[in-house]
Amino acid sequence: MTCELCELAGPREAAPVVYRDDKLSVILVDDVNYPGFCRVVWNDHVKEMSDLNGAERALLNEAVCRVELALREVLAPTKVNLASLGNVVPHLHWHVIPRFDWDSHFPGPVWAAPARDVLPAPVTRLRTPLPELDARVVRAVAALAPGD
Amino acid sequence: MTCELCELAGPREAAPVVYRDDKLSVILVDDVNYPGFCRVVWNDHVKEMSDLNGAERALLNEAVCRVELALREVLAPTKVNLASLGNVVPHLHWHVIPRFDWDSHFPGPVWAAPARDVLPAPVTRLRTPLPELDARVVRAVAALAPGD
Repeated sequence: MTCELCELAGPREAAPVVYRDDKLSVILVDDVNYPGFCRVVWNDHVKEMSDLNGAERALLNEAVCRVELALREVLAPTKVNLASLGNVVPHLHWHVIPRFDWDSHFPGPVWAAPARDVLPAPVTRLRTPLPELDARVVRAVAALAPGD
Repeated sequence: MTCELCELAGPREAAPVVYRDDKLSVILVDDVNYPGFCRVVWNDHVKEMSDLNGAERALLNEAVCRVELALREVLAPTKVNLASLGNVVPHLHWHVIPRFDWDSHFPGPVWAAPARDVLPAPVTRLRTPLPELDARVVRAVAALAPGD
């Protein structure tokens, strides 16, 4: 059985990866309702946070925090949601989701039933274009890379 | 406006707190569908993980990891779900949820529409009684307390 998150370790062109180093990758999720939704993926196929050793956990937690900070600085969301679920794809990854009081599910979780339609499109409501977010995320996480 | 999580810092009798120290508290959530569902609450009223300093974040992340390990050791869940949402109550807290392939939403998130009714009651399916989980969680997290 292939794991779709393991496949991220293949050619970068195959996935919308904005950042990757030896340990982890950051993906911008293509969800029309949630522009700026990032995933931080541990490259190795491990299942739970507690399967990592302390140094690995600290690195991954810090990367998630830096993505959160980048989202806050660039998009000024109402709230940031963090989640590591992995019930369908048991390969350790974090959802880092900028939430806005106007978004389709707020204040519910993004996995609940939607509360409203959002028009005009969410991406047009962001105060900063997404490519600037990509660049900010890359800078934030790259500073953690082994050897830096 | 009162914050229900700030109220946890009041008399312990007022809430089902299984552990509390100067920095954080652990609550067993009373949810019939999710026996063993824990919340790790930062005592101070801060909103986001990135509002904590590095040492505070490391402490909270480690507490969450130890609760996850306690759940794994005691209940052997199919997966553990971790989430910090706080859209309704913007007081930093982590959901640590043992998931089982027979539970009401698996493999969906617990916030999605339920996939099935679970009978007999979930609590009767656990391999270990919940009071033993409480004791294990307290031991795991207390070992992190300042001064230890």
